[in-house]
Amino acid sequence: MKNFEIIKKCSQTKARVGKIFTPHGEIETPVFIPVGTQGTVKTLSPEELKEIDVQIIQGNAYHLYFRPGIEVIKKAGGLHNFINWDRTILTDSGGFQVFSLSHLRKITPEGVKFSYPLNGSEHLFTPEKSIEIQNTLGADILMCFDECTSYPCDYTYAKNSLALTLDWAKRCKKKFQVSSLKFKEDKNDQPSTINHKLLFGIIQGSTYLDLRKESALRTVEIGFDGYALGGLAVGEPKEEMYKVIEETVPLLPENSCHYLMGVGTAEDIWEAVELGIDLFDCVQPTRNARNGQLFTTFGKINIKNAIYRDDFRPLDEECDCLLCRNYMRAYLSHLYRAGEILALRLNTLHNLYFMVKLLKLIQISILENRFFEEKKKFLDKYFSLVPEN
Amino acid sequence: MKNFEIIKKCSQTKARVGKIFTPHGEIETPVFIPVGTQGTVKTLSPEELKEIDVQIIQGNAYHLYFRPGIEVIKKAGGLHNFINWDRTILTDSGGFQVFSLSHLRKITPEGVKFSYPLNGSEHLFTPEKSIEIQNTLGADILMCFDECTSYPCDYTYAKNSLALTLDWAKRCKKKFQVSSLKFKEDKNDQPSTINHKLLFGIIQGSTYLDLRKESALRTVEIGFDGYALGGLAVGEPKEEMYKVIEETVPLLPENSCHYLMGVGTAEDIWEAVELGIDLFDCVQPTRNARNGQLFTTFGKINIKNAIYRDDFRPLDEECDCLLCRNYMRAYLSHLYRAGEILALRLNTLHNLYFMVKLLKLIQISILENRFFEEKKKFLDKYFSLVPEN
Repeated sequence: MKNFEIIKKCSQTKARVGKIFTPHGEIETPVFIPVGTQGTVKTLSPEELKEIDVQIIQGNAYHLYFRPGIEVIKKAGGLHNFINWDRTILTDSGGFQVFSLSHLRKITPEGVKFSYPLNGSEHLFTPEKSIEIQNTLGADILMCFDECTSYPCDYTYAKNSLALTLDWAKRCKKKFQVSSLKFKEDKNDQPSTINHKLLFGIIQGSTYLDLRKESALRTVEIGFDGYALGGLAVGEPKEEMYKVIEETVPLLPENSCHYLMGVGTAEDIWEAVELGIDLFDCVQPTRNARNGQLFTTFGKINIKNAIYRDDFRPLDEECDCLLCRNYMRAYLSHLYRAGEILALRLNTLHNLYFMVKLLKLIQISILENRFFEEKKKFLDKYFSLVPEN
Repeated sequence: MKNFEIIKKCSQTKARVGKIFTPHGEIETPVFIPVGTQGTVKTLSPEELKEIDVQIIQGNAYHLYFRPGIEVIKKAGGLHNFINWDRTILTDSGGFQVFSLSHLRKITPEGVKFSYPLNGSEHLFTPEKSIEIQNTLGADILMCFDECTSYPCDYTYAKNSLALTLDWAKRCKKKFQVSSLKFKEDKNDQPSTINHKLLFGIIQGSTYLDLRKESALRTVEIGFDGYALGGLAVGEPKEEMYKVIEETVPLLPENSCHYLMGVGTAEDIWEAVELGIDLFDCVQPTRNARNGQLFTTFGKINIKNAIYRDDFRPLDEECDCLLCRNYMRAYLSHLYRAGEILALRLNTLHNLYFMVKLLKLIQISILENRFFEEKKKFLDKYFSLVPEN
């Protein structure tokens, strides 16, 4: 079974519309993946995510392993069952979280030893362990356990880290293959047309183009169902990020899915799709929503600003989401100022709907060979708002 | 236009099923009113309230006057428009809040002078001002501005307070009548069959039966669309509360609506309906939900309790709400422990649904002359749960 198919290539750029096949459904790309770290996309219910047509969410191996605990999720019949989500789940390997524990962790060739900050208990995460956790969670798309370097990153450090990540990628693949065989045996009463789980490799190498190239070629050599660019959007200038994407994507198999981790803004997504990226995830739409920042057709506004206290217009007159159809800015301002939870809910729902709509617009612009026109039209409007004082 | 009609009297008790007619719809009683102090029933959206068949919510004149400010709501076209709720709204007069500011307020015959705690500004709330605010909010059911005495309350204090409350009740009615005439003129293009706004008088007198009797008789003498028992559920023993209800309700016109303010628990509601009460409001179902306490057919449970971490059953197997149909206790436990907002939402939705269902059960038990049987059946089950350790 193939797990990714290109439906249409853009005539103007490297952009493409594609489809990912997973055990929990098909996903049209380019697509944005809302982050649901702890088994919930913060403030929203699965029903609401479905209403705004979210097809895939992200879970986190590290967080869920500790809380509620992997045994609980196993007994609950997996993450889908536990959180009442029957669509696709991609899980982060936990690498990013473990490496973020800077002074609490020690890297060895075997894996990473660390103290869990909430109770000080000692743990060892290895590539095998990460795959095992992600499998137990029942992820549809698993990510290799890698080291995500920070920015700026010393060249030698980046080079050595890369070697480690490549070694771990091989071990992840091996573990995944063994468990996939087991998975197939478990399911041997199923028809053979069932979609399989996917394992994605991760390209690292900081902002060094030669290291990125080496990482890409050697990761492709190992062979994965899809390829992610990791270690970007970690503080480097945007031009450097775009350059890495531009130089790396052509080294990946065209017929595989390309995932840019941790991105991002509307403008970054347009740029990255243009360079051949299919998948995105980022906490920004949800986190910023909880901080009062809302995305509109005419740019970002912050509902905390005093001017919205008596602004009786909808948030975005060109948006047809629940919030924009039913509520006025003055009410959002009031809810936010009064510390009401409904503010966080409505803001989050709107920002995610904005992302879903943006990615659909991008898909259509590719299908209709109007990528540049739509990109310009969108960004001209999006940057037309006079900045708030 | 009549504003309340009795549909069926219980053959066994003073309970009755009735209907309230308001400008925003009809409400079948006995009914529970969810509290939406700041223009939102905490954590929920109006759509969700409608899904669980909530017909009426409560707003608060004091809180909304200050935040977002009465001018904002006026310009927004009233509270219904501002919060996107097209069903009935009852507003609290703000009296309870003003009197709670103990050392920041001074009572005079004219009204109450107080400092607004959030910014220290000085204000005077009078009966007229309260009615004006409630009218500007666009309330369907307005409450008289009264003094809600605390418990225990000195007899002389209660007696004097009562006189003040009666004087204020007259002034509230006068102000309401003037503004109702204005209201009718404004709407003179409407058919004359439009339902009118309602003004409810409030009976006080602490736990002194003679004062309660005096308050009831003299409030009825003034004449209101409905009558509330205030100053109960403020710490007095339950038996005293029941006694006050038992002695007071027979003094009220049978064909008017009887409202017990600030109550309450499932068992209190059964008792009070039996004594002739039609309306209830209480923060308990919503506030307790946010603290992890959930109502089930078999009693109250606290989802914070460690035993629910790996309890994979639905919360209440006899409940068909969104939460009970789709989620397991272990997930609710996880969400609560992880500090996720979805926990507060699902808990609140469930507890309010529990109340809606309870009041419907009570209605049916009256309609079918099975009040005592259903009451016993419900309470036997409700108190059957072994207390959690």
